[in-house]
Amino acid sequence: MLSRHLQLSEKPNLAIVGAGAFGEFCIPHLRRFFSIRLCDPRRDLDEVSKAHRVDTVDLATAAKQDVVLLAVPLRHLRSVAKAIAPHLRPGSLVVDVCSVKVKPLAILEEELPLSVSIIGTHPLFGPQSGRNGIAGLRIAICPARGRRSRMVERFLRGKLKLDVMRVTAEEHDRQMAYVQGLTHLITRIVVTMDMPPLEHTTATFSHLNTMVGMVRHDSDELFRTIIADNPFTDNVMQSFVKATKDVLQSFDVSSGKGALP
Amino acid sequence: MLSRHLQLSEKPNLAIVGAGAFGEFCIPHLRRFFSIRLCDPRRDLDEVSKAHRVDTVDLATAAKQDVVLLAVPLRHLRSVAKAIAPHLRPGSLVVDVCSVKVKPLAILEEELPLSVSIIGTHPLFGPQSGRNGIAGLRIAICPARGRRSRMVERFLRGKLKLDVMRVTAEEHDRQMAYVQGLTHLITRIVVTMDMPPLEHTTATFSHLNTMVGMVRHDSDELFRTIIADNPFTDNVMQSFVKATKDVLQSFDVSSGKGALP
Repeated sequence: MLSRHLQLSEKPNLAIVGAGAFGEFCIPHLRRFFSIRLCDPRRDLDEVSKAHRVDTVDLATAAKQDVVLLAVPLRHLRSVAKAIAPHLRPGSLVVDVCSVKVKPLAILEEELPLSVSIIGTHPLFGPQSGRNGIAGLRIAICPARGRRSRMVERFLRGKLKLDVMRVTAEEHDRQMAYVQGLTHLITRIVVTMDMPPLEHTTATFSHLNTMVGMVRHDSDELFRTIIADNPFTDNVMQSFVKATKDVLQSFDVSSGKGALP
Repeated sequence: MLSRHLQLSEKPNLAIVGAGAFGEFCIPHLRRFFSIRLCDPRRDLDEVSKAHRVDTVDLATAAKQDVVLLAVPLRHLRSVAKAIAPHLRPGSLVVDVCSVKVKPLAILEEELPLSVSIIGTHPLFGPQSGRNGIAGLRIAICPARGRRSRMVERFLRGKLKLDVMRVTAEEHDRQMAYVQGLTHLITRIVVTMDMPPLEHTTATFSHLNTMVGMVRHDSDELFRTIIADNPFTDNVMQSFVKATKDVLQSFDVSSGKGALP
């Protein structure tokens, strides 16, 4: 199967490593531009392979493709990087899609040979928000190693029609500690409160409710990445707790016995 | 002045007691239907009286009008009620506009004679959200004493084109403890955090940001009323603090020394 694809197509080869929700979501958007191979040592790929008519390969083969797209949770990233490192070819491009950027890019720069290009991306969308297409949606791109980032940026903007923001990994995480950290923290808090049904709401409350609806079904895995794997989040959380305390105290509002840790 | 108005007009007389932002905001919306007198013992009314061409009266005179609209902060409501009580005429209608309903209606029922009708309202809009007109905006109405509530409801719906929700004071406050309590609390927290400028935001964050923008300029007075004068808010605040604690702990996130009171 693999060799037939290579003969019939002049498209570059791209391996998606990690066939979770986001990895699978990528396939239809990338297949116009790449011959796609799918790899996930942790999952039986029969169904997804048939559904999308893509070949499945092992990690060593995945590593030999022109582009290697790593769509694995951050906690598996180092072991995957170690596994592909010996098989990567000089000049190939490795791209990750983690929601934070400092930690995963540090791992990839440590584990991968100097001969490959490394680019971090953070697609600010997913299977939910991208279900009606991804044109106009936003992606952050953080160049890490090599000189391929302008080409990747052109591809994301020109071919996928994404709204590309180029940013350092540190600046990305610093801003996302607020942008994602706060929205996810507040959503988790509101969901945990388990509010009764409310008929009489306001326009203001609708915005809170819409925010909660957009985030509440994100996985614990993503929440943990956003909160615990962003080096700037701890400050934001402390600032949130301090602000909560200040606001409640300034209005003499009792908060009962629920002192924060 | 007063007598001239009475001769020339067959409109009922309505006194607005309290010429704060909301009281003044009411004038252009009500003047088509009422002869308006303005009363505010705490404020020099020369300017507002000229700007809107309305007569100003003292509290005793205000109390003698067909309708007395109390647009004063909750903390002044009892003293105003005591001051107007001896001058109210049997059959007149007293309406308040506080953002909570249990406490102000209890005060009015205690202080005002049985011969007057009392209706609580909570306009879920103000000078900001109603700056381009109030048609379609929402108002809660809580009948308290007398049989005038259907008439008032018809007026609000038919003449002012408001979206009227009829609800008991207790149910209103129970729901608003979440609807207003949470949005105002979260907004105050976010504002207190004093975030840096963020260029790279998400659709989710925009909803948080819009919510904060809609509420952040509300007065301390309104915030205090919403948080401290709603008998159900304390539970919501305790639930918020407990949920915050649970969420942070479940993800092993340090919250520093910011323990809540």
